[in-house]
Amino acid sequence: MQEVNVALIGLGNVGMGAAGILAGNADRIARKLGFPLRVKALCSRTVSGKTLPPAFDGVFRTSDWREAVAYPGVDIVAELVGGTTDAAAIIETAISAGKSVVTANKELMALRGAGICDRAAAAGINIAMEASVAGGIPIHNVLREGIAGDRITALFGILNGTCNYILTEIEKNGTAFGDVLAEAQRLGYAEQDPSADIDGGDARSKLAILAALAFGEQISPEAIFKEGIRRITPLDFDYADRLNHTIRLIGSARNVDEGLLLAVRPALIPKTAIMAGVTGSYNAVWVRGEYGQDTFYYGRGAGPSPTGVAVVSDLMRVAREIRAGSPLRVSPFAHAHLGGNRVCGIEHARSAYYLRFRVTDRPGIIATLASILAAKNISLDAVLQLPTDSKQNLPFVITVEPATERSIRQALDEMKGLDFLVEPPLALPIEKGV
Amino acid sequence: MQEVNVALIGLGNVGMGAAGILAGNADRIARKLGFPLRVKALCSRTVSGKTLPPAFDGVFRTSDWREAVAYPGVDIVAELVGGTTDAAAIIETAISAGKSVVTANKELMALRGAGICDRAAAAGINIAMEASVAGGIPIHNVLREGIAGDRITALFGILNGTCNYILTEIEKNGTAFGDVLAEAQRLGYAEQDPSADIDGGDARSKLAILAALAFGEQISPEAIFKEGIRRITPLDFDYADRLNHTIRLIGSARNVDEGLLLAVRPALIPKTAIMAGVTGSYNAVWVRGEYGQDTFYYGRGAGPSPTGVAVVSDLMRVAREIRAGSPLRVSPFAHAHLGGNRVCGIEHARSAYYLRFRVTDRPGIIATLASILAAKNISLDAVLQLPTDSKQNLPFVITVEPATERSIRQALDEMKGLDFLVEPPLALPIEKGV
Repeated sequence: MQEVNVALIGLGNVGMGAAGILAGNADRIARKLGFPLRVKALCSRTVSGKTLPPAFDGVFRTSDWREAVAYPGVDIVAELVGGTTDAAAIIETAISAGKSVVTANKELMALRGAGICDRAAAAGINIAMEASVAGGIPIHNVLREGIAGDRITALFGILNGTCNYILTEIEKNGTAFGDVLAEAQRLGYAEQDPSADIDGGDARSKLAILAALAFGEQISPEAIFKEGIRRITPLDFDYADRLNHTIRLIGSARNVDEGLLLAVRPALIPKTAIMAGVTGSYNAVWVRGEYGQDTFYYGRGAGPSPTGVAVVSDLMRVAREIRAGSPLRVSPFAHAHLGGNRVCGIEHARSAYYLRFRVTDRPGIIATLASILAAKNISLDAVLQLPTDSKQNLPFVITVEPATERSIRQALDEMKGLDFLVEPPLALPIEKGV
Repeated sequence: MQEVNVALIGLGNVGMGAAGILAGNADRIARKLGFPLRVKALCSRTVSGKTLPPAFDGVFRTSDWREAVAYPGVDIVAELVGGTTDAAAIIETAISAGKSVVTANKELMALRGAGICDRAAAAGINIAMEASVAGGIPIHNVLREGIAGDRITALFGILNGTCNYILTEIEKNGTAFGDVLAEAQRLGYAEQDPSADIDGGDARSKLAILAALAFGEQISPEAIFKEGIRRITPLDFDYADRLNHTIRLIGSARNVDEGLLLAVRPALIPKTAIMAGVTGSYNAVWVRGEYGQDTFYYGRGAGPSPTGVAVVSDLMRVAREIRAGSPLRVSPFAHAHLGGNRVCGIEHARSAYYLRFRVTDRPGIIATLASILAAKNISLDAVLQLPTDSKQNLPFVITVEPATERSIRQALDEMKGLDFLVEPPLALPIEKGV
């Protein structure tokens, strides 16, 4: 059968990973497909300096993406440049030229994915984006087809490998956040400007994409509450341990009475949860369905080869559909507006909470805090204090029974003026659902 | 767009689960597909006695599967009767009639899946079988499409929920195998004749299907080594615990120098492994790829609704392909003969082993056993003996460093004649790969 031809645009980590697989695994891919998947054009701003697989020796190379998109015979454009400017232009140009698109671009797809997919559908071309979320985990495939018959009611993800690496290093070695971050930067696991990762923005884009697919709703990343991991200390892991829990940055989307509740924030999860076994830079997604109940997916969150597998698997699927003559089979956002999933505010969240305080010790502190919580109808569950010798910066923890985020925030607000607090209290939800 | 019509044949657990989802989730399914998925015929030997969803009130019902397959307008036949006789006839009749097939039949597909898929391909119809393995986990979808770009090098699965339930009950409560089995039978978790589950036959069929898909090889279930869980005692969990391991029935398929190595057997796995967190009747699959590295999939192994999700998701995929005019997109066994994966014998397995003995105590036992192992070039790792007061039936454990199954078997063979052994030694591999 006739080959399907690909233009690879962007030869950074992901592009080089995909190129390596397309070259090294070409025979197997052709046998699986029944026809060859051919790289016809390679594009990077620094293409002349790239060491590419020898299999690509005769392949057209350019530093101008327009030439790659327009190259004769190209059926699928793989947009692997990232960002939202050039990437958007590349994708729109491909759509206009009637070429299918495979992208690894979480930021762009989270911001403008629904519109892009609509235009792709109108143009009768396919667009695939498995690599945009949780690199090596085929979670798009699972949500779009594998469990398509179910009605998803909740989804929880560890979606940022850098944060998970930092948190599990703090947990394992008791090292302070800043020291772990510095070491992660030294090792190349964290960016020199780490804020997109550690403040939750990256995980939020990924959650927006997954939730759109799982709940059939257009979701703006900005509408998702986010809180990063800068305030998590080794001490928090000690207290969590005492409660038989650990701490992870969890992106969550779930149906509640008020609508679809979305958040990215550090949370306590039970040590017995499978999710608690997700350490280092791995990613994971927990899905709950009305019919299929709980399923769980785990793998590498990033890295050239795992993300490359996602890109190449997408290329294979799109190529197969092109050869079958049905280019648009199912778009990532085709389920938009399944209904009943209006996004609601974080104040409707309801769970048990872990409240960690740092105070200048004196009598009556617990009584003061307890009475503020009681006034908001929040019931104390436990008060924990691990041994310490600092009376001037004394940490302790109060856990409370399930309460709404609104009432917790109101209580924390009232605590603001208390002069014995060394810093604002840290409030983390205790997730029982994973 | 025009509806796609389904005949549901078999209204046992799985059939009723699928029927419930097709009725209860019909609107959402139609919105996802862009057209309705309609149940046009319902068939069961006891169809008149079934309480079916009210949505199906006007639907044609019959106790004769031939009538259901032949019913006018039926596009897809869902074979949910199980077994290998009627099921085979139903599927072959559907293929002959040019109707696509969705099946949940692990036994039939393990035995004759490749031939059935070849005939389906020749007839230009689609066949899907997600529900045949690991009910609620979309592992077929993952292997066929989600990580299609990868080259899989190993796959490990907890594929039998009954065995996993029994093992984790022994682990949790220290109850003897026979008592847990009796309780499981009382609760309906185990069959009155439990041998297909507890002797590994059911898991072996599932492994044959998964390995065929993952490694592109036709695999006869009979060619797979199997060993059940009847000999696992609470004591084995105590010893495993001392080694910081637990015990699960693991179906494994992996590339070794000699070919593709397949086995279903109880194995020690590290407590820190995510796989060790799979308890009760859950199933899980661990996949290792050359490029994507490790991914892991977890969910309900059985149950009407989780398995029903697999059936309905398959129906949706096949329906979409029918509407797109490309009925045969990718068959479950389409990857047959990717090459390089000739099945090799279990004697080529290589791992550390746990050897548990029961002896009549007397001096020199360890020396005797150690010299037999040494003669086969097997190195002792540790000797463990938990406190006991039985000198006539004294258990202890020897762990050995990585050795081949062949050498272990030769050593066990030589131990056969030793008069101090109360029973043949129990040898379990220690799996480090999961």
